[in-house]
Amino acid sequence: MLPSLGYGATSATSPLQAIRFERRDPGPRDVQIDILYCGVCHSDLHTVRNEWHNTVYPVVPGHEIIGRVTAVGSEVTRFKQGDMVGVGCMVDSCQHCPSCAEGLEQYCENGFVGTYNGEEMHSGGMTYGGYATNIVVTEKFVLRVPEGLDPAAAAPLLCAGITTWSPLRRWKVGPGQKVGVVGLGGLGHMGIKLARALGAHVVLFTTTPDKRQDALRLGAHDVVVSKNADEMAAHENSFDFILNTVAAPHSLDAFLVLLKRDGTMTLVGAPAEPHPSPQVFNLIMKRRHLAGSLIGGIAETQEMLDFCAQHGIVSDIEMIPVQSINEAYERMLRSDVKYRFVIDIASLRGAPAQ
Amino acid sequence: MLPSLGYGATSATSPLQAIRFERRDPGPRDVQIDILYCGVCHSDLHTVRNEWHNTVYPVVPGHEIIGRVTAVGSEVTRFKQGDMVGVGCMVDSCQHCPSCAEGLEQYCENGFVGTYNGEEMHSGGMTYGGYATNIVVTEKFVLRVPEGLDPAAAAPLLCAGITTWSPLRRWKVGPGQKVGVVGLGGLGHMGIKLARALGAHVVLFTTTPDKRQDALRLGAHDVVVSKNADEMAAHENSFDFILNTVAAPHSLDAFLVLLKRDGTMTLVGAPAEPHPSPQVFNLIMKRRHLAGSLIGGIAETQEMLDFCAQHGIVSDIEMIPVQSINEAYERMLRSDVKYRFVIDIASLRGAPAQ
Repeated sequence: MLPSLGYGATSATSPLQAIRFERRDPGPRDVQIDILYCGVCHSDLHTVRNEWHNTVYPVVPGHEIIGRVTAVGSEVTRFKQGDMVGVGCMVDSCQHCPSCAEGLEQYCENGFVGTYNGEEMHSGGMTYGGYATNIVVTEKFVLRVPEGLDPAAAAPLLCAGITTWSPLRRWKVGPGQKVGVVGLGGLGHMGIKLARALGAHVVLFTTTPDKRQDALRLGAHDVVVSKNADEMAAHENSFDFILNTVAAPHSLDAFLVLLKRDGTMTLVGAPAEPHPSPQVFNLIMKRRHLAGSLIGGIAETQEMLDFCAQHGIVSDIEMIPVQSINEAYERMLRSDVKYRFVIDIASLRGAPAQ
Repeated sequence: MLPSLGYGATSATSPLQAIRFERRDPGPRDVQIDILYCGVCHSDLHTVRNEWHNTVYPVVPGHEIIGRVTAVGSEVTRFKQGDMVGVGCMVDSCQHCPSCAEGLEQYCENGFVGTYNGEEMHSGGMTYGGYATNIVVTEKFVLRVPEGLDPAAAAPLLCAGITTWSPLRRWKVGPGQKVGVVGLGGLGHMGIKLARALGAHVVLFTTTPDKRQDALRLGAHDVVVSKNADEMAAHENSFDFILNTVAAPHSLDAFLVLLKRDGTMTLVGAPAEPHPSPQVFNLIMKRRHLAGSLIGGIAETQEMLDFCAQHGIVSDIEMIPVQSINEAYERMLRSDVKYRFVIDIASLRGAPAQ
């Protein structure tokens, strides 16, 4: 087994701390990676605190992983030692169901294996994530990080990036379209950048007027304060697509009525309590769609990384040492981050372990 | 002006009774029709009782109209005296917006003119519907009734038929697909017949076990009692499309989880109170869609009538004289109709008027 040093939690109420654990021995199809950077996603916090009621402790979170290949198995063909690579939210799937066959492993009919708090398919234990010094991942789930992408700022592309990219592509966002992004956080700020680079006219919806300048800087053509009914009314029946990144319960109707006929609003944030129920008339009267979307497949994640390199897109990040993670979680809860924390894993290599 | 005798209501609380009123004089593009049959839709009752808070009295309901052409204007080219024709839920639209240009007049950006309780574009008054001896309609909104369709049983095709046909076509229902129909009423029984004729594997969902035999007779391959959790669970992740015709608030989640990845449930019934809010996870986890659909365009209504003639499809009806309409409304509220009342307008021609 391969020793690893991570940062994780031993219960829902304990702070994150250094934890020694082991990775599986790399097999012939595996890629062994020294982790350099790991983004901090709100899912990490949900899992650490068992807010989804499915956490197995100890848990080592982190699924926005950038690192360098240190070894490859004998059957690995796409990577070699020294390559800069990424690992996102998944590290395995069945590989034989219809969704896997279509490259949509996130919808694997048999359930994909999460990068952390997932059931390891090889050893039978649990998976541990990227708040750690290394990781072993089957080649199929390892991404190439193109030259020219800042590795630290690229880390959040592996979750926040692909979670917004996949629906933008699925609903064919491009030139000539008017696209809304609801919420300016980790997901929303990537949604703006990607939708803009795809050629759409991008409108950011926020409840916080102070975010206007930042949204414009990130690439929004227009910013609408969603609490302002007049501003909202001016956009009725005008959007081709709305990407809703807000996980807190809110009125979906306020945004559904902004869609054109046959327009879609796709939810990528999942609130613990449902949103207030949308009015059926708002769906019927313009044949509108309400949909959801979950991260993205491996092939489209690679496509997104290549697109980002081509367009010079990365996440806006604040780098932290792993020792600041508990404080970072508190700041994340206050939305006090622009727009993603990334852990410099070098800070972990010198940390004392339990 | 053209005198007409209808059956309508003068207030939200008064029973329907004979009412004399006038139609506009037929213009060069108009078709004048003697009405033979008119189907009874739940919308008629909602409007008569002002349950949508927009009724202008007196109101003469009815938008499932079959009749014979008695005169045509000088510019009318598609119809001649003696033709058997139909009129559905719309009698006009702006004809210049994108939706009208695409033949989707039901989504007219400027608002279509309803067959009753609508604002007449010619005279400036209100429109009066098909519980009446005659009607004058612009050629564009008149449908050909193909030979071989029983005229009385074809009347409900103009609303119940097209309301189910349009979404079945929009979501490309056909051979190899598993399609659900929720609810066995006026809409649901047409949904079964049309989806079956389109080649799909059709499953009817009902809360009433007694409806099983009837659903199979109408063309369903399978019937699921939706209150039975085991029966429902056996169909998880298996449907390409679900047409939900139930207007009473109910759990959408129970049906959303039956959809495959990328599947759509389309609502064609609009409850007065919203459904319980669906769980966002059920949309996200399989990229499922919740949508709505409103009646159908004129071109697709003609397509549906032609398809029905080709496949020998009409509505299952119970014919009534107009004098029984108030009792029929009460029976409709108890779902005591298989599956659509149709008024024999001959019964109105001898009725005394106020």
